[in-house]
Amino acid sequence: MAQIEVMKNILGENDRVAAENRAMFRERGIYVLNLMGSPGAGKTSLLEKTMERLKDRVRMAVIEGDLFTSKDADRIELQGVPVIQINTAGGCHLDAPMVQKVAKKLDLSALDLLIVENVGNLVCPAEFAVGEDEKAVVLSITEGDDKPMKYPLIFKESAIALLNKVDILPYCNFDMKAATEDITTLHPGMKTLPISCTTGEGLDEWCDWLLARVKAKKEA
Amino acid sequence: MAQIEVMKNILGENDRVAAENRAMFRERGIYVLNLMGSPGAGKTSLLEKTMERLKDRVRMAVIEGDLFTSKDADRIELQGVPVIQINTAGGCHLDAPMVQKVAKKLDLSALDLLIVENVGNLVCPAEFAVGEDEKAVVLSITEGDDKPMKYPLIFKESAIALLNKVDILPYCNFDMKAATEDITTLHPGMKTLPISCTTGEGLDEWCDWLLARVKAKKEA
Repeated sequence: MAQIEVMKNILGENDRVAAENRAMFRERGIYVLNLMGSPGAGKTSLLEKTMERLKDRVRMAVIEGDLFTSKDADRIELQGVPVIQINTAGGCHLDAPMVQKVAKKLDLSALDLLIVENVGNLVCPAEFAVGEDEKAVVLSITEGDDKPMKYPLIFKESAIALLNKVDILPYCNFDMKAATEDITTLHPGMKTLPISCTTGEGLDEWCDWLLARVKAKKEA
Repeated sequence: MAQIEVMKNILGENDRVAAENRAMFRERGIYVLNLMGSPGAGKTSLLEKTMERLKDRVRMAVIEGDLFTSKDADRIELQGVPVIQINTAGGCHLDAPMVQKVAKKLDLSALDLLIVENVGNLVCPAEFAVGEDEKAVVLSITEGDDKPMKYPLIFKESAIALLNKVDILPYCNFDMKAATEDITTLHPGMKTLPISCTTGEGLDEWCDWLLARVKAKKEA
């Protein structure tokens, strides 16, 4: 029981700071996406491809969440997009206070889009809002088509599910139809999109989805 | 600060119960393995193949950890091996009290080997002992060769790292040599083994490793 109370207090404090972050981003018309998925689902590769396509059309920045290293932030930096690293020192998710602390180091007046790449984990990140407008989940088809039902919260919380690495679908035992049906059962109306960061499949549609979100936020 | 104290207390209480579990298993000469890895790394497939090979040679049982479903336990049950499901109701790891509660439902006097399949997560399970003799980590090569350095604790804590899905290595950008070197840098002397549950590669060596552990425990 004591443990449940502690969890409630931690989540309550996190929600309070997430609301502050949300207000800070809203004031400047910045669309914020919390990008989640398992280790190796392809979140950083997706970001690299997204920046190649969008960095000259949208003013964007990235916050990179990792347990210890700066491997992902180093990859993003090569794209010439502002990036700030958060090392959670073993912590399994980002939270709103971590994002608030580093967001203040970005020139927010010069941004339209902020993508927060969470720690690789299909469980805990979904429980902690960081002040985002929406969440997105990347699921690699190599993880198996049973994963939506086994990890439902992250799909319920996300606005879009990107089914990545479809280039190797012929070598994997993944039922795209069943997985898509499970996702839309968990979250009716949710967008699902098969993509490949290797062949580029689906990436134009993903970027169009993202641009529409950024535009709507500016006009809100 | 308060949060750190709470974490210390939770871990301290967990360690106390883990020691009780360890004593309970030691008394009966049961070797207990805590099997960990990301969602979709192939833990359940590995268990299926392990049981096919060992169920007539070793008296074994499985404890299955999942957030909500019994999908994995249902697969294990088909093998005719005793299996007990723990649903963590969203919790991101198994802990010692959960394992203690369900272990009492098994006929421990009729067991040589107990494998605990943890929740699919490369972060949190490594922090919580459940009363195991050793931990093992399954890493799918589709997750990328940068994962050992990004998720070091689980490799430091494990006695063996199984590099799974090597049958699709030609279609993935995974440097086996670099990953193996990183793992043994993190944990000198640790065993690493490339395996495939599709082709069977490495599975005999894995089963021999496991049998040697079971035998040593019986004789201890």
